[in-house]
Amino acid sequence: MQYRPGVAARPPFLFADEPDGLTAEERRLLLGGKGASLAEMGGVLGLPVPPAFTLTTDVCRRVLDGGWPADLDDHLRRALDGLEQRAGRRLGDPSDPLLVSVRSGAPVSMPGMMDTVLNLGLDDATTAGLADLTDERFALDTHRRFLQSYATVVLDAPVDFHAVVRGALEAAGVEREADLGPDDLRSLIADLRVAIAAAGAPGVPDDPFEQLRAAVAAVFASWNGERATVYRAHEGIADDLGTACSVQAIVFGNRDERSGSGVAFTRDPTTGEGRRTGDFLLNAQGEDVVAGDHVTLPLADLADHFPEAAAELDRTLDVLERHQRDLCDVEFTVEQGRFHILQARRGKRTGAAALRIAVDLVEHPDIALTREEAVALVTPGHLEQVLHARFSETHGEGSGAEELTRGIPASPGAAVGRVRLTPEAALDAADRGEPVVLVRLETSPDDVAGMAVAEGILTARGGLVSHAALVARGWGIPCVVGAEDLEFADDHVRIGGRAVREGDTIAIDGATGAVTLGDREVAEAEVPPELDVLLGWADELAASRLVVRANADTAADARAARDLGAVGIGLCRTEHMFLAPDRLPIVRAMILAGSDEEEAEALERLGAAQREDFVGILEAMDGLPVTVRLLDPPLHEFLPDLMELVAAEVRGDLDEEGRRTLVAARQWAEVNPMIGTRGVRLAHLRPGLYRMQSRALFGAVAERRAAGGDPQVEVMIPLTVSGPELAAARRWVEEAAAEVAHDGVPVVGTMIETPRAALVADRLAPHADFFSIGSNDLTQMTFGFSRDDVQGRFLGSYVEQGLLEHDPFDRLDDEAVGELVDLAVERGRRAAPGLKVGVCGEHAGEPVSIRRLLAAGVDYLSCSPARLPVARLAAARAVLGA
Amino acid sequence: MQYRPGVAARPPFLFADEPDGLTAEERRLLLGGKGASLAEMGGVLGLPVPPAFTLTTDVCRRVLDGGWPADLDDHLRRALDGLEQRAGRRLGDPSDPLLVSVRSGAPVSMPGMMDTVLNLGLDDATTAGLADLTDERFALDTHRRFLQSYATVVLDAPVDFHAVVRGALEAAGVEREADLGPDDLRSLIADLRVAIAAAGAPGVPDDPFEQLRAAVAAVFASWNGERATVYRAHEGIADDLGTACSVQAIVFGNRDERSGSGVAFTRDPTTGEGRRTGDFLLNAQGEDVVAGDHVTLPLADLADHFPEAAAELDRTLDVLERHQRDLCDVEFTVEQGRFHILQARRGKRTGAAALRIAVDLVEHPDIALTREEAVALVTPGHLEQVLHARFSETHGEGSGAEELTRGIPASPGAAVGRVRLTPEAALDAADRGEPVVLVRLETSPDDVAGMAVAEGILTARGGLVSHAALVARGWGIPCVVGAEDLEFADDHVRIGGRAVREGDTIAIDGATGAVTLGDREVAEAEVPPELDVLLGWADELAASRLVVRANADTAADARAARDLGAVGIGLCRTEHMFLAPDRLPIVRAMILAGSDEEEAEALERLGAAQREDFVGILEAMDGLPVTVRLLDPPLHEFLPDLMELVAAEVRGDLDEEGRRTLVAARQWAEVNPMIGTRGVRLAHLRPGLYRMQSRALFGAVAERRAAGGDPQVEVMIPLTVSGPELAAARRWVEEAAAEVAHDGVPVVGTMIETPRAALVADRLAPHADFFSIGSNDLTQMTFGFSRDDVQGRFLGSYVEQGLLEHDPFDRLDDEAVGELVDLAVERGRRAAPGLKVGVCGEHAGEPVSIRRLLAAGVDYLSCSPARLPVARLAAARAVLGA
Repeated sequence: MQYRPGVAARPPFLFADEPDGLTAEERRLLLGGKGASLAEMGGVLGLPVPPAFTLTTDVCRRVLDGGWPADLDDHLRRALDGLEQRAGRRLGDPSDPLLVSVRSGAPVSMPGMMDTVLNLGLDDATTAGLADLTDERFALDTHRRFLQSYATVVLDAPVDFHAVVRGALEAAGVEREADLGPDDLRSLIADLRVAIAAAGAPGVPDDPFEQLRAAVAAVFASWNGERATVYRAHEGIADDLGTACSVQAIVFGNRDERSGSGVAFTRDPTTGEGRRTGDFLLNAQGEDVVAGDHVTLPLADLADHFPEAAAELDRTLDVLERHQRDLCDVEFTVEQGRFHILQARRGKRTGAAALRIAVDLVEHPDIALTREEAVALVTPGHLEQVLHARFSETHGEGSGAEELTRGIPASPGAAVGRVRLTPEAALDAADRGEPVVLVRLETSPDDVAGMAVAEGILTARGGLVSHAALVARGWGIPCVVGAEDLEFADDHVRIGGRAVREGDTIAIDGATGAVTLGDREVAEAEVPPELDVLLGWADELAASRLVVRANADTAADARAARDLGAVGIGLCRTEHMFLAPDRLPIVRAMILAGSDEEEAEALERLGAAQREDFVGILEAMDGLPVTVRLLDPPLHEFLPDLMELVAAEVRGDLDEEGRRTLVAARQWAEVNPMIGTRGVRLAHLRPGLYRMQSRALFGAVAERRAAGGDPQVEVMIPLTVSGPELAAARRWVEEAAAEVAHDGVPVVGTMIETPRAALVADRLAPHADFFSIGSNDLTQMTFGFSRDDVQGRFLGSYVEQGLLEHDPFDRLDDEAVGELVDLAVERGRRAAPGLKVGVCGEHAGEPVSIRRLLAAGVDYLSCSPARLPVARLAAARAVLGA
Repeated sequence: MQYRPGVAARPPFLFADEPDGLTAEERRLLLGGKGASLAEMGGVLGLPVPPAFTLTTDVCRRVLDGGWPADLDDHLRRALDGLEQRAGRRLGDPSDPLLVSVRSGAPVSMPGMMDTVLNLGLDDATTAGLADLTDERFALDTHRRFLQSYATVVLDAPVDFHAVVRGALEAAGVEREADLGPDDLRSLIADLRVAIAAAGAPGVPDDPFEQLRAAVAAVFASWNGERATVYRAHEGIADDLGTACSVQAIVFGNRDERSGSGVAFTRDPTTGEGRRTGDFLLNAQGEDVVAGDHVTLPLADLADHFPEAAAELDRTLDVLERHQRDLCDVEFTVEQGRFHILQARRGKRTGAAALRIAVDLVEHPDIALTREEAVALVTPGHLEQVLHARFSETHGEGSGAEELTRGIPASPGAAVGRVRLTPEAALDAADRGEPVVLVRLETSPDDVAGMAVAEGILTARGGLVSHAALVARGWGIPCVVGAEDLEFADDHVRIGGRAVREGDTIAIDGATGAVTLGDREVAEAEVPPELDVLLGWADELAASRLVVRANADTAADARAARDLGAVGIGLCRTEHMFLAPDRLPIVRAMILAGSDEEEAEALERLGAAQREDFVGILEAMDGLPVTVRLLDPPLHEFLPDLMELVAAEVRGDLDEEGRRTLVAARQWAEVNPMIGTRGVRLAHLRPGLYRMQSRALFGAVAERRAAGGDPQVEVMIPLTVSGPELAAARRWVEEAAAEVAHDGVPVVGTMIETPRAALVADRLAPHADFFSIGSNDLTQMTFGFSRDDVQGRFLGSYVEQGLLEHDPFDRLDDEAVGELVDLAVERGRRAAPGLKVGVCGEHAGEPVSIRRLLAAGVDYLSCSPARLPVARLAAARAVLGA
């Protein structure tokens, strides 16, 4: 924001209760954030803020440029006169002293970067007056705080006030400042004065106007303080904006029984219900209300004590909510029956409340929030709250739950159950109706039945893309992976050194990765009815620029995804079909095939099975696009673990087939499988594979058509690095389509998941009907981070140490990976204008990444079904720029 | 090249023997390549080319734009008159017919893209005349070839001439066209005429001028033929250049005994000696000389037969060599005593000859070649020839060597020796003076002693960066790796299904990857004395822009590299020091350390050992920069193979330490080690490591200084992905430098080997004194190609199928990897102007890549010592643009 002088001659100060005729933007530039807020509440909305005036940023600039102007004292005196008149009190009057706060406030928020002085106007005489009016202890404590702050901010005295206060605590034999009595405080005030004088500082002036003048000068000077200057340089804030300085009367809710303080919400921030809530305390300051050690009164009782103030509050809340068009909370003080609003903000709220409030305000006759505004009021964080079960309270002191270890949080939610170490044991226990947490070294397709019945899953190995993590996220089961200090024995497991037996109860937190021993209370997810309404609006708003599909590999997943609002499948991984228990033997037969005939026969059988799967998926997604990715993983993933085969061989446990399997496992073993013989590379070694998959797919299309369905398939080639490589694969698909008499040319696209694919996107685009950015693999290759290896090992500590700003698997790397996505989209569309581009990595379900991906120009996202609500909302918010 | 009209009015044709007053560039634009060459030899150098004229590209453009101009027939007749006069023969004269060739020739070489008609002027009558003057069979065969070419090129007749010729062969009962007798040819001519007529073509005109006119028109038209148009579009050649058309008299070396043909070289192309060589045949055409089935006469005898022609040839060779400033070869024909030069080219030569000729021509008093020209005359291919032993002949039919398999050629050279399957057996055999080829599944540091005594190394596993490949290349031992069809038994190995026992002789070809059974003759490398002279010039010419360092890890390698001309070490891999047999136990002790103290103690011992190594290297490279890369590989590389540990455990063979080692091996095992916990990442997990290495290094520096040496060290951090990550590592190095009282701030740089590092180079540069591009790893990550996995498996077939243009590990990928290098240099220097950038991947020794890297702006290369000569030459040639 740059300061632009608008009006030639402006008043040097403005009172908060007088209309100023400025636009909001001018107000902000001239009066700073704090001053503008006071002027808006007081002058614009006519709300009863405590009397205040603001010296403008113009004045600040004049002071900083040319020193204290000759006429400024006069202005300041006039302003103070006006303030005293409005407050009905005078600065320095011992019988009823006016105290003021002197606050900085820049046109741009610079939290904590500049100075503020509170309770200005106190000296021994006024402190005594205040003590008479309120409470002696309170008055003395306020005085000594003022001395500390004035000496620091205005006098810049080099005094270690902490040491002085520590001395007072020791002398009094108490531990907390709140336990210092009036005499202790009097001694402390004396000590503070001695320390200030000893430091060679000039001492706090007795003349209250002198105090005010010096405080204002200090606030202006703090604009050029080191903290503020560095902050502005870092944030790119112009140095010539200057700060305004607001001087406001302090009101005391603890003045007498006709006084009090409270907080109020325009609506219930917990449930979202449209009723005022809040609480208050009689004869108390605001901090007592929020401190939690006083028993507060419900807001409904306010009228019994202060009928006029209650009416004022009611009007205030009404005005504020209509003005903010959102839930507001206010802090208020009643001083001797007079109502003052100290602060008003948009209120924090729970997820359920956020949804209800957004929908209610749209229906509100006077507010009539737009759908855009409603969507902007609900954050992805709000949705996470309503979608997943959470532990009712955090564990730790007093919760009874002992933390055993922490792993990688891989699928959100809270799960409590009895430990089972095998899928069989999990199934048995589930049959008995027992809640199960399945604990495994790692999971494989053999574990899937046991995983399906578990409340939660815990593994020792693997990262966020491990089998366990992927399956759990797909099904919405809470899961923690890569918990490295798990040691397995026959009938128990040691977790973080503690032996845990089968049947022991543990809890896993899919949000934090914490694994605790013993039961914990779970707050189940409750999806409020407003969710669907709001997500419907979100879809409508985003539809023209960014739509959300799901990653789904089975008909069941596809149906679930459609129910959750997916407008298609952006990633159907065919390997998951290969891993099904009844398919795996056929896949292995194909790998072990001793002849072309054997291979062809196995492929034929696989094809028949895949075709069935495809029919189911296409039926579930009838009329919506389904992007089928041809086989991606390396072949050894379909073979038993090489290490176990070797062990079995040494033991002499391998039969003839076992030995053949061992040979194949050795042959297909890879040093770095992630960047080895996978995807289209494997297909070029075994061209029958993609032909078979394509025939199965187009066979399913024909079958669905014959049944009157409307199948919409898109075929996706993974791991491409060059144009000719893609063109050759495309030919297989086209030939297969022609073979099964598919009418029309098939839609074929490619994943962009190697850095090279992104950089040569213009060479790929001529052979592709669409791009789908595989942001997981792209991140792995761009950083050279094998996710399975680095995530459990050093990535967390990298983020903690600030070596990386965040986990790039969690949130898309804005710089390098983001640039590659930008280039892929730009170059792809340069070669093929209008090319459709999607994203099917995990980032497609993460709000900050979604914003980045939209900026890169992608057309659709595809995320796991469980992430759909968040992704739909985040897509709309990104499109709205919310 | 773009056509720029220069002279307003130009003649439509030029005779080859008349000076044309054009510059070489104008000549090329106007007369095309062929015409310019004739004009240069004839008109400029005054050499006796057969009479010829060239119709200019101006004429072609006029014809293509507006059809055959009205005056062109007249011009063509005048040109033909002049040609007949010069040749002393007339077109269509049966008694002594003039035959001409009509050739296209564009300003830019477009080989084979346009048309040519030979022997124009033949009809039945002139054929009979030619038969009388030469030989009947020759005349008839020439005639039928003319008919075929005229019908195809000029008449565009849709005739399958191959089928017609096949019919003639069958009718004659012979297999080769050369075996068709005069009668057979007469029948064939008749058949051809029938076929042409049957295809509806107009027939070959009788009027020879008509033939000429039509042939010229066809040559011009071929400029816009499909082949030529596509070629130009692909090569970016302007469509408006047009082609010239040269018409040249054909001379007959087989006219009589006063005729003959031959080839001659200005110098010996085999040895480079400064004497004329060549051979010739009496009464024969040029093709008979090169066909190899005639016994030719040595050139020295030419004067005995044709004294005048021999003198002409002598003068011609002299003129040509001075003009070309290079070895020339010529084809010449003597027709009835008259000498004609048909073609002159720069001569092909062996590597040894190239070196000798380049150096000799610099010293030649008249030619006085510049050093730039000399360096441009020697190619990297020439150096490869003199540097490595080769097999005297290729194997295959008749060579007696049976090819067993092919692996990946990993280190050039030819080796023959007896198979030894263990390093111990290799050492024993070497002690007996027996030549050894060490054959292993793969090699490890334990094999090094056996590798050192081997003539050649063959492994079943691994790629170009495997241990075997790296060690072999470093030592210049021929090596083939990744020969996948090797099966090991106790006392023999099956190679490609054939059992080979210890002691059997095999040969391996490090240039092709071929493994053959039995002895083969090896032509040992002979380095000619001119090599050092030429490389000295190369260094001098390249010095200001691109210098060459070596990769060297030991003092011995450093000395060798210095001897081979390295101006420093660009990559000293400290892990090779860790792998030495006496160090490995200390490294393992560090990994297995149960406490911080144990780890610190092991590090201390390692540090002492490393310091010694560093002292040796710094001594060998005294005064030259040595770039030390801190530890790069993952820790499991220093542990025994996990699979073998598991097998040993199952067998019950593990003792207490073995079991601890197994636990550590499991802990440090990685799914994808290449992109796992390596380099600076590992250092962040074990910060003591880099501190120790830095202390050892700066200790060595201090020791060398104390001894009066001039150590120049640069410390390199591997695998960086972010600025803070590099900054933290830099701090360790600086602290270590300060600790050992090193004066001055250490030079610290980083490798650029992840795509992210290249893209965020501007964030890294502020923390780096230099960049070193690790092009191997950068290629792996950019393509997602794990070199060890993909190179043996599919990369070869990818290149064969055209899915990739070349192996990107062999030659730098121009597109994606090249772009990342460009970006790294550009962004790095934007943030730190003048930043020094080197390359230390394998590409630093490959000529085409060197050219690309220079274009990207790198300052230095670092290659394995064995590649130094080639890299030094290639660097100079790249700088010269040769």
